[in-house]
Amino acid sequence: MKKYVYSFGDGKAEGNAQMRDILGGKGANLHEMTRIGIPVPPGFTISAEACVYYFKNKKLPEGLKEEVGNALRFLEQQTGKKFGDKENPLLVSVRSGARVSMPGMMDTILNLGLNDETVKGLAKKTGDERFAYDSYRRFIQMFSDVVLGIERKKFEEVIERKKEEKGVKLDTELSAEDWKEIVNEFKKIVREEIKEDFPENPEDQLWKAIIAVFESWNNKRAIEYRRIYKIPDDWGTACNVQVMVFGNMGEDSGTGVAFSRNPSTGEKEIFGEFLPNAQGEDVVAGIRTPLALSVLKDKNPSLYNQLITIFEKLERHYRDMQDMEFTVEKGKLYFLQTRTGKRTPRASVKIAVDMVKEGIITEKEAIMRVKPEDLEKLLHPQISPEFEQKNSAIAKGLPASPGAAVGRIYFTADKAMEKADEGENVILVRVETSPDDIHGMARAKGILTAIGGMTSHAAVVARGMGKPCIVGCEALHIDEDRKIMEVNGKVFKEGDFISIDGNTGNVYEGKAELIEPEIFPELSQLLNFTDKIRKLGVRTNADTPHDAKKAREFGAEGIGLCRTEHMFFEGERIYAMQEMILAENKEERRKALEKLLPLQREDFYGIFKAMDGYPVTIRTLDPPLHEFLPKDEKSIQEVSKRIGKSPEEIKKVVENLRELNPMLGHRGCRLGITYPEITEMQARAIFEAAAKAIKEGIKAIPEVMIPLVGIKEELRMQREIVEKVAKEVMEREGVEIPYKIGTMIEIPRACITADEIAEVAEFFSFGTNDLTQTTFGFSRDDIAKFLPFYIEKGILPDDPFKTIDQRGVGELMKIGINKGREKNPNLKIGICGEHGGEPESVKFCHKIGLDYVSCSPFRVPIARLSAAQAVIEEENEK
Amino acid sequence: MKKYVYSFGDGKAEGNAQMRDILGGKGANLHEMTRIGIPVPPGFTISAEACVYYFKNKKLPEGLKEEVGNALRFLEQQTGKKFGDKENPLLVSVRSGARVSMPGMMDTILNLGLNDETVKGLAKKTGDERFAYDSYRRFIQMFSDVVLGIERKKFEEVIERKKEEKGVKLDTELSAEDWKEIVNEFKKIVREEIKEDFPENPEDQLWKAIIAVFESWNNKRAIEYRRIYKIPDDWGTACNVQVMVFGNMGEDSGTGVAFSRNPSTGEKEIFGEFLPNAQGEDVVAGIRTPLALSVLKDKNPSLYNQLITIFEKLERHYRDMQDMEFTVEKGKLYFLQTRTGKRTPRASVKIAVDMVKEGIITEKEAIMRVKPEDLEKLLHPQISPEFEQKNSAIAKGLPASPGAAVGRIYFTADKAMEKADEGENVILVRVETSPDDIHGMARAKGILTAIGGMTSHAAVVARGMGKPCIVGCEALHIDEDRKIMEVNGKVFKEGDFISIDGNTGNVYEGKAELIEPEIFPELSQLLNFTDKIRKLGVRTNADTPHDAKKAREFGAEGIGLCRTEHMFFEGERIYAMQEMILAENKEERRKALEKLLPLQREDFYGIFKAMDGYPVTIRTLDPPLHEFLPKDEKSIQEVSKRIGKSPEEIKKVVENLRELNPMLGHRGCRLGITYPEITEMQARAIFEAAAKAIKEGIKAIPEVMIPLVGIKEELRMQREIVEKVAKEVMEREGVEIPYKIGTMIEIPRACITADEIAEVAEFFSFGTNDLTQTTFGFSRDDIAKFLPFYIEKGILPDDPFKTIDQRGVGELMKIGINKGREKNPNLKIGICGEHGGEPESVKFCHKIGLDYVSCSPFRVPIARLSAAQAVIEEENEK
Repeated sequence: MKKYVYSFGDGKAEGNAQMRDILGGKGANLHEMTRIGIPVPPGFTISAEACVYYFKNKKLPEGLKEEVGNALRFLEQQTGKKFGDKENPLLVSVRSGARVSMPGMMDTILNLGLNDETVKGLAKKTGDERFAYDSYRRFIQMFSDVVLGIERKKFEEVIERKKEEKGVKLDTELSAEDWKEIVNEFKKIVREEIKEDFPENPEDQLWKAIIAVFESWNNKRAIEYRRIYKIPDDWGTACNVQVMVFGNMGEDSGTGVAFSRNPSTGEKEIFGEFLPNAQGEDVVAGIRTPLALSVLKDKNPSLYNQLITIFEKLERHYRDMQDMEFTVEKGKLYFLQTRTGKRTPRASVKIAVDMVKEGIITEKEAIMRVKPEDLEKLLHPQISPEFEQKNSAIAKGLPASPGAAVGRIYFTADKAMEKADEGENVILVRVETSPDDIHGMARAKGILTAIGGMTSHAAVVARGMGKPCIVGCEALHIDEDRKIMEVNGKVFKEGDFISIDGNTGNVYEGKAELIEPEIFPELSQLLNFTDKIRKLGVRTNADTPHDAKKAREFGAEGIGLCRTEHMFFEGERIYAMQEMILAENKEERRKALEKLLPLQREDFYGIFKAMDGYPVTIRTLDPPLHEFLPKDEKSIQEVSKRIGKSPEEIKKVVENLRELNPMLGHRGCRLGITYPEITEMQARAIFEAAAKAIKEGIKAIPEVMIPLVGIKEELRMQREIVEKVAKEVMEREGVEIPYKIGTMIEIPRACITADEIAEVAEFFSFGTNDLTQTTFGFSRDDIAKFLPFYIEKGILPDDPFKTIDQRGVGELMKIGINKGREKNPNLKIGICGEHGGEPESVKFCHKIGLDYVSCSPFRVPIARLSAAQAVIEEENEK
Repeated sequence: MKKYVYSFGDGKAEGNAQMRDILGGKGANLHEMTRIGIPVPPGFTISAEACVYYFKNKKLPEGLKEEVGNALRFLEQQTGKKFGDKENPLLVSVRSGARVSMPGMMDTILNLGLNDETVKGLAKKTGDERFAYDSYRRFIQMFSDVVLGIERKKFEEVIERKKEEKGVKLDTELSAEDWKEIVNEFKKIVREEIKEDFPENPEDQLWKAIIAVFESWNNKRAIEYRRIYKIPDDWGTACNVQVMVFGNMGEDSGTGVAFSRNPSTGEKEIFGEFLPNAQGEDVVAGIRTPLALSVLKDKNPSLYNQLITIFEKLERHYRDMQDMEFTVEKGKLYFLQTRTGKRTPRASVKIAVDMVKEGIITEKEAIMRVKPEDLEKLLHPQISPEFEQKNSAIAKGLPASPGAAVGRIYFTADKAMEKADEGENVILVRVETSPDDIHGMARAKGILTAIGGMTSHAAVVARGMGKPCIVGCEALHIDEDRKIMEVNGKVFKEGDFISIDGNTGNVYEGKAELIEPEIFPELSQLLNFTDKIRKLGVRTNADTPHDAKKAREFGAEGIGLCRTEHMFFEGERIYAMQEMILAENKEERRKALEKLLPLQREDFYGIFKAMDGYPVTIRTLDPPLHEFLPKDEKSIQEVSKRIGKSPEEIKKVVENLRELNPMLGHRGCRLGITYPEITEMQARAIFEAAAKAIKEGIKAIPEVMIPLVGIKEELRMQREIVEKVAKEVMEREGVEIPYKIGTMIEIPRACITADEIAEVAEFFSFGTNDLTQTTFGFSRDDIAKFLPFYIEKGILPDDPFKTIDQRGVGELMKIGINKGREKNPNLKIGICGEHGGEPESVKFCHKIGLDYVSCSPFRVPIARLSAAQAVIEEENEK
């Protein structure tokens, strides 16, 4: 007979931390904590396999009743209490717990085992009638909510009425009698709602709860959560049944949640909250604002020290920052949960690096601890200091998740989703969030709530998503129906702009200016770790000396793509460019090109200077010429005046250059081949700039890259031009310039004929943006009509413009690499499409043996991390 | 020492027909004719290797002088004459002759060896002073033209003046004295032109002529000719030196050219021309209009019979139709050249099939004798009988090359080229053509000349190019300077339209209506030969029952591509289509689709009927929807009225559907996936039509083809819809329909993931048009700006949209085939791009193992022939 139930208690446990697949994360850790001597109330776990069985067979496995019975006997033995006993009743909690933490599922039922009889026993035994009935009403409330599906609000209203009636503000001010009456009211509500009495039989209660836990695996929120986080639907959840301990037995009792380090900053400090005389869900639900744990240091040094010791022990044991729940029952401390703590991206970096310093983990482990996606979030923009100086916050809340966001406010998750999908930047503003809001939170740029603490739902989820979030911003008065909020006398309507700063908790009116992120010391250390390990070089895509400098700061080892055309759009340069395009013969064209030459030369010089000692890959002109010409009547008139050609002539050229499919048109090297003088001018600018730099002692290493090559002869002809110019300049200037000539590989034919092309190339750089377009036959500008549908229906797993399509585009890359290296073993191969900074794609690039990736400056750290992880993952696979 | 000189004479020869690589075609055949006993004047051939040496080393090979000297001695011995002898001088002809016939090179110098002394000896020896000086002036004229580079016209003017002075019309009417004077004039011209005397020393003459022959390999015309016909530049030419025989020794002498069969129709009949008292170049140059050979039957039966006997002998010996030159010297017949005769495409088919019947060649040889390109030309349009009835010809010339052409007239090759390159249909109209006109002829749709016979330059070249051509149209009065021509009192300007019928020689004013070609009996027989041999199936691309029937006549074994969208454009159908596109929801869309269903069903029924027993591959909707919507204001208003939506709504939809790169946009299966109801309707129409046909006893075999698949899941989802409909219809109608579902392979990703796609496909059909676009990143609509340049510069050998790019696109096809068959060994694979009817591409399709090709109906015969040739070529390679 298969074993479905695993017990723990009294320092022994049938399970351990490795068994999370069947015991769930929460369960496995209860077993583990018991094993290592942490005070944990005894209990047992019904394995996730029972849940899977239940869904498969529409019934519970045979023998489960008996196993659960035995486990209950064990608990009775441990506690000396008896389940359902009128004198000394055993009460238990029932909690769901899957392999990974899933806020979408049913969480907890406390105080199970209470009924009209046992409650009396509890009152008698504890000598605290008020406590007993408070516990009972909580049980009915929770059970009704999660098992019977009755709205929580209905019960809250009864309590609110009672408090008003009694003229009190806090729950704790209600008496035992009040609670008794409330219990009766609650039962009436249950009868009305489900046309049945509230179940009095504890056995009945328990099995209903267990089934509710299982069923919660497939509720809407859980399914939504799994979809977002790509969790398989067939894992199922375990169910934990544990002896109750009570935080609501008076002021020497309480309940708390804690992190072993600050999950927001990563600082090694006590971080958490404690709510005296309360049960666990009071804290998590964010209903009452709890005490910071740090105050315990003075208020209850003994408890404080016990906590510190256990935090330390658990962290050392699990070798990671822990997120814990505990309860104090009449001065005695119990731990109810520990798990790896969610943290902000910044904290994740700091903790990983600190733990290396503390000797807890290795550098490689530290590298694996930080998700590249987190780094991406970390490198999110921040509000500019200038803006902060000039503007005062309209309100301040708790800084629950860092980063800054600017957007229009919406008051419901549905509306936020709708508007975000329309392309708006959205800030979701709620009184508080619940798992029902997940879809809106996932799409919002930032989240702002009026109530709740640092461990409230909004705070936890936003940190997980890496989104800026402010909670407990009490100045907010939200009127969801009227779609407005009032903040210190000022009214904001739906759609108005606000800005939030998740680092400070400040809320601003209007649109804040944002600034690019900087590298902080721990990040720098982490990235240094990665540099020791990774095999992929990391370059950057940069078109200006400014970007080049920024990228160097981020650790770029050269430029993988410098787009020369961006230089042509700037200021008055476009005039010369237009003259060039409108030229009627080679002479006129050369004259215009002469004007562009010194400008380009100056740009290249600046870039060589910024990249001193590192290669700079410069791509010759790529976009179709019509992009440089005016489109509307007025601009045509202007150009006409400036260059002295009639508007009709200009319109004729514009018309002539119009293309049906510009993506597949007269662009890339096709321009350089039909107008060799353009390539010649660009080559001249590059080599003259390099010569100047070298004469000044700068190590300029130009790599000239010809775009859109599909035929060997194209590259050979362009190469001839570049080599001729290089030779001329080097001879005239008397300097040796170390240079390479190569090509972008961005159309399928280039991959297929890479052997031929490699004969005349010193390097390849995959242009995976265009390669994806041509391999799929997708126009990136036009896919909006079907790509989202494709991803929704699972026709494609991901947007291939975000993550490399390994099966198709990736296969073509492999063909290109193999053929290229076969003919030219010295061929350097990189990638400069946007995929070059996307973690999965970077790892793929490592796997297929590229020499380097190149990405936008702020993605350089992400690429460095991903490249190192790729190496470690490969080692781990062996 | 390498041997460079090969002698022939007296029934023996050092060379033979197999040695054309070194002796050239003309030389090799002179040797061969000598060997088999044909009367050939003795001579020797300087091999092409000497020419290659000459270009490589800028000098003649060592020992060549001696070899030539020995060969000359042999000729002296054979003839009893002596080179340069004053009494009995040996005269020779010097002719170029490369591996393949090349009209662009220097052709012939006759009578070499004459000078002021030897001419007297010749006069004395022959007793014909007039003949001697006529020969001498010819020699000076030819030598000056081809060796010294003096314009022929300058000499012609002297003769014209002399004739005027004497008041005679024909050259033959001039006396010995006249010619003497003319010789003196000629020599004066030479002195003026080259500041040197005409070379008197025969040795000197000979070596100058030999070098001129070699040099002519690299003249402009020869290079141009090689470029057009893709002849390697490094072959070089041989040089033939042969004892002179004289056709200009009176009325019992003459010269002729002949074909062993009619090169225009292929009939087995005597065909050629004879010019009494003339030397060879008089015939070819088309200066005097010669006699048809057939008249000799009565005029000179002895000569006629001799000729017939030799024609027959040569044809049997060479196993092909011969093109021959001969000279009669005082009644004695000599053959000066034989070669495989150029012929019209129609003649080529008839001769090949007739020779099989005559037991001369095998069926396989017959198949290899007809070039697929010829078949293409043969299947050129003809002038419609209705047009011919209603219009009378404005002039009639000799029908030199069959087929009809309509175009604008231009009077120079340069202008014809310019206008043709601009996209005009051009008829080149010349007094006569010369090798300088090749580039204009190559680009013209048809050629019309005022003078010259059936073997004139224009006639020979046009037949080779397969272009309609009329020569000797004497009614034409061309004024090249004023750019007009006058025909029977009517004036035509440059750019006016005319039509020519190369089958009848008729010239029409304006644009004639053309009709599609038919299959004639010999072609049908030839195609029957191919069907026994070829392994590739040949299907057709047809969208209507009419086209399907036509294709069946041409031998199509099914439909490889039926484009359903063409059906939607017809007449009022577009209205329903527009309604469908403008529908605001699925319901409206379904209603519009319901209107289209019966129309499509009827079309499919007609096609199944026409293709009874053969598979019909129907492609589901492919083009982007905006193609069906109105573009301009007026059409939008019309649509608005018709379907009751406001013009604004319609404009909004048009605007929404606009795409930046429609080629890569929302089309193909992407439509069927986002609007599954369209695929459903089409499937319903197909299977209901098939059911109806089958119930009537027609064998309907539908193959449903999903376009633009790049992801397995796309095909799987579309397949699901089609299968569901098929099942429903078969059950409801109670018939079994044998059907297949497959996909077009037309984007690179489909090739790369063909293994996955093959899991859900029963057939693949390569759409090489789109595959070429995406593989190259070329938009077919936009390539005009660079593709011609690419081909001119040799960056690409051919237009990849005409001939499959085997290296790139072909490689992807191979990948697709291998991966597809690996997963699904029963996969049927075909091609339905336009390449499916292009000979080289068809052969490639055979090589890579396709099951069938599909092409437009009139290309079906071409594909059948090419497919058979592919098999034979493969056998020959083994």
